Amino acid sequence: MTDIARLKAALADVKVEDNPAIVKQKSRDFYWYSPVLRRQLDHVTADLFVSPKNEAEVIHVLTACYAAGVPVTPRGSGTGNYGQAMPLSGGVVLSLAEMRAVTAIAPGRVVAEAGAVLAAIDRETRAHSRQEIRMHPSTYNTASLAGFIAGGSGGIGSINWGGLRDIGNVLRLRVVTMEETPRVLELSGLDLLKVMHAYGTNGIITEVEVPLDAAYDWIDVIAGFDDYMDAVRFADLLANRDGLLFKEIATVAAPAPYDYFLRHQKFLRREQSVVLLMVAPHALDPFLALAAREKADIRYRSDTATDAEKKGLPPVVELTWNHTTLRGLRVDPTITYLQVLYRFPGHVGSIARLTEIFGDEVPGHLEFIRFDGNVACTGLPIVRYSSDERLDEIIRIHEDNGCPIFNPHRYTLEEGGMKKTDAVQLAFKREADPRGLLNPGKMIAWENPDFDLDSDQVYLFPGLAQTAAE
Amino acid sequence: MTDIARLKAALADVKVEDNPAIVKQKSRDFYWYSPVLRRQLDHVTADLFVSPKNEAEVIHVLTACYAAGVPVTPRGSGTGNYGQAMPLSGGVVLSLAEMRAVTAIAPGRVVAEAGAVLAAIDRETRAHSRQEIRMHPSTYNTASLAGFIAGGSGGIGSINWGGLRDIGNVLRLRVVTMEETPRVLELSGLDLLKVMHAYGTNGIITEVEVPLDAAYDWIDVIAGFDDYMDAVRFADLLANRDGLLFKEIATVAAPAPYDYFLRHQKFLRREQSVVLLMVAPHALDPFLALAAREKADIRYRSDTATDAEKKGLPPVVELTWNHTTLRGLRVDPTITYLQVLYRFPGHVGSIARLTEIFGDEVPGHLEFIRFDGNVACTGLPIVRYSSDERLDEIIRIHEDNGCPIFNPHRYTLEEGGMKKTDAVQLAFKREADPRGLLNPGKMIAWENPDFDLDSDQVYLFPGLAQTAAE
Repeated sequence: MTDIARLKAALADVKVEDNPAIVKQKSRDFYWYSPVLRRQLDHVTADLFVSPKNEAEVIHVLTACYAAGVPVTPRGSGTGNYGQAMPLSGGVVLSLAEMRAVTAIAPGRVVAEAGAVLAAIDRETRAHSRQEIRMHPSTYNTASLAGFIAGGSGGIGSINWGGLRDIGNVLRLRVVTMEETPRVLELSGLDLLKVMHAYGTNGIITEVEVPLDAAYDWIDVIAGFDDYMDAVRFADLLANRDGLLFKEIATVAAPAPYDYFLRHQKFLRREQSVVLLMVAPHALDPFLALAAREKADIRYRSDTATDAEKKGLPPVVELTWNHTTLRGLRVDPTITYLQVLYRFPGHVGSIARLTEIFGDEVPGHLEFIRFDGNVACTGLPIVRYSSDERLDEIIRIHEDNGCPIFNPHRYTLEEGGMKKTDAVQLAFKREADPRGLLNPGKMIAWENPDFDLDSDQVYLFPGLAQTAAE
Repeated sequence: MTDIARLKAALADVKVEDNPAIVKQKSRDFYWYSPVLRRQLDHVTADLFVSPKNEAEVIHVLTACYAAGVPVTPRGSGTGNYGQAMPLSGGVVLSLAEMRAVTAIAPGRVVAEAGAVLAAIDRETRAHSRQEIRMHPSTYNTASLAGFIAGGSGGIGSINWGGLRDIGNVLRLRVVTMEETPRVLELSGLDLLKVMHAYGTNGIITEVEVPLDAAYDWIDVIAGFDDYMDAVRFADLLANRDGLLFKEIATVAAPAPYDYFLRHQKFLRREQSVVLLMVAPHALDPFLALAAREKADIRYRSDTATDAEKKGLPPVVELTWNHTTLRGLRVDPTITYLQVLYRFPGHVGSIARLTEIFGDEVPGHLEFIRFDGNVACTGLPIVRYSSDERLDEIIRIHEDNGCPIFNPHRYTLEEGGMKKTDAVQLAFKREADPRGLLNPGKMIAWENPDFDLDSDQVYLFPGLAQTAAE
């Protein structure tokens, strides 16, 4: 009897899938956006896909896996882009998707189980008291709450509230450790940073408390500009108008909107760059006054579009963040993308410079965010991919222009993130996952403390090389 | 029969007060904070105090006053500090205080009559749908909505949403003109700037639509610091934490809090400067985590104070903005104050420099605000007044250090404001008040277009000199 067979027997009371085709499908995320990750991770699969129904079952699964020495990679909805939830050493993919109850709603707060989908939470909080969560990524309709917190993003998918790790955007996490006898910890305050955006490498989140804000019937707007930098300047102007309220402000350079947003194509002009907006209804009139003054060409408004026009049209949020890339890839599978930070106060200047340097090789795509109290941009520019060498060069040119890249072509926390060890997360992993069984291969600081993050070398997880060779 | 007697007869159906003692009392505001305005305006009084009950009565009063050539100075609750609602040419003080109905509440919006008191509006919107208005000045419990918009403030009394004139903070105003046949205009978008913060010199606001935000049971917090600049840096840090939610962030330098906040004195230490905060309940735990890290000494929290401790204690908002000055004046009538803008990004440095220059002659008082998308400070520092000359010198030193002064010792729009003609307001006055009967003496551009606003000369309204001489 193999370890896996014994483990399966020990999990007789839990929902377990072992059909290799299904397990492989459930071992993937959207890593294939990156031609680099596509090559590295395509073969990756778990042995078992396990779906606990509650925290007690999570504890039971972790206890059994710990005893068997089997790795566990947690997963929400699998909407990540960097293989966050892909099991590099095989073993168990632990799905939290069936733990999706919203358990408490109060003014300014909601508590939900880990796997609750963002939009589903909002349906309940809106019905309860016209409130909604702060997070609003383009995967809003599919991403799970804990998945978004564990691996989702630096931003929270909105112009408001800053980044995911900004204190106050998550209030409390319940986390189960990977030990002989798992412990259940409640983290809050600065302790939350131990497990947020750690890809589940140092604990399994079972319950989340996040703040709520007033919910509105956001109006989708698309504004066109003949010059991309005019679109950028208009977006920046809106983002800095303190009296207006938006949920989302993004820009995409021509001809990407027309070429890639096929269902919206009828509203667009190929030569126009666009500003994508979600506007609060009570901010619409003042917004339109500014739009008229700034000569924005309003191409689409969800409040005035007819039902016939809106039929089959995705919401504007599904044109933003990495859905811009996704729509591009559907039309042209040879493109890829980057993730760039354009720092305040020079962000508009940096964007102008890089737009000038790259032209149509790197069509611009910006998401406006708050960053340490000011408006800045994160970018997910499209890259007309030619070679890994040119991609590296494009990255270097961005960094030479003061714009750090969060490389979406890397599957480790460090290389995709700040390129340094997160000592807090590492220390917590020592405590919560002493045998290193949680999501192996994602935290370089744990796997290979001597690896030089400043080198040009790409980290290759030995376990991954091994499974690839099998 | 005098003009006034004839006018009184014409207003037989409207509530009119002509008892000189009462009319004089209703012709005043809090101009006496300023030793300069106290001398200039102390004698000012209207002839009649008129209180229409609805817009039709407003139109009737304006028609009659226009016919009689009698000036009309509108007034809300009279909480201004610069004689905004003081009738420099006598005539009628038009009180909007009895028009105070909240007429419509919807998600993100409220419509109210001009005289509705801010806190009273919130009581209705909270009960209706847990919403509240954005404005939260220290006169929250007394100021009227239209009064605040017409003459209140540059800020809106909150760390959020920027300034009063920022587009989106007022959605619609109904305005009655001062003509032979008054017109009723609905202003929105950029047109709102025609009458906002114009002291009622170019139209009478009868109805207001403003945005609403989610209402919370804000928690009052007072944090102490031994060094004033540590208090300032902590307040700035909080104001820039995008994931936290405050309604109010202010600082007051020692020993003013202990010396002036007499009801809170039991919680304070004389050598400590304070940060005054209103914190959303769901932001309290993350705030306390930061406060502990930054070694803030939490002296008071409304959520943990006992009922006995809270008895007779004003809310923290009534320690902020010009209530800081008011409490100071009650203890030491020889002080006065200034209004300073400390511009982003150098605001903390400017504050440090001025604190160093003036020491206890000008104890610091800051209100943190959003200004064109960034966090900045407006200041209402206390001034230990010695002479008009020294006051002018203190003003000059601020301006030499890059910190413009909005002089609270002037009763005109221009001298108390941007020191330049507001062409939009002036043009609208030509249209809406062709005979110049609305609030005479407050708009220099109308009264004396040749007056040099860049000179050191103080404008003296001729009508004021005349009434003073009588």
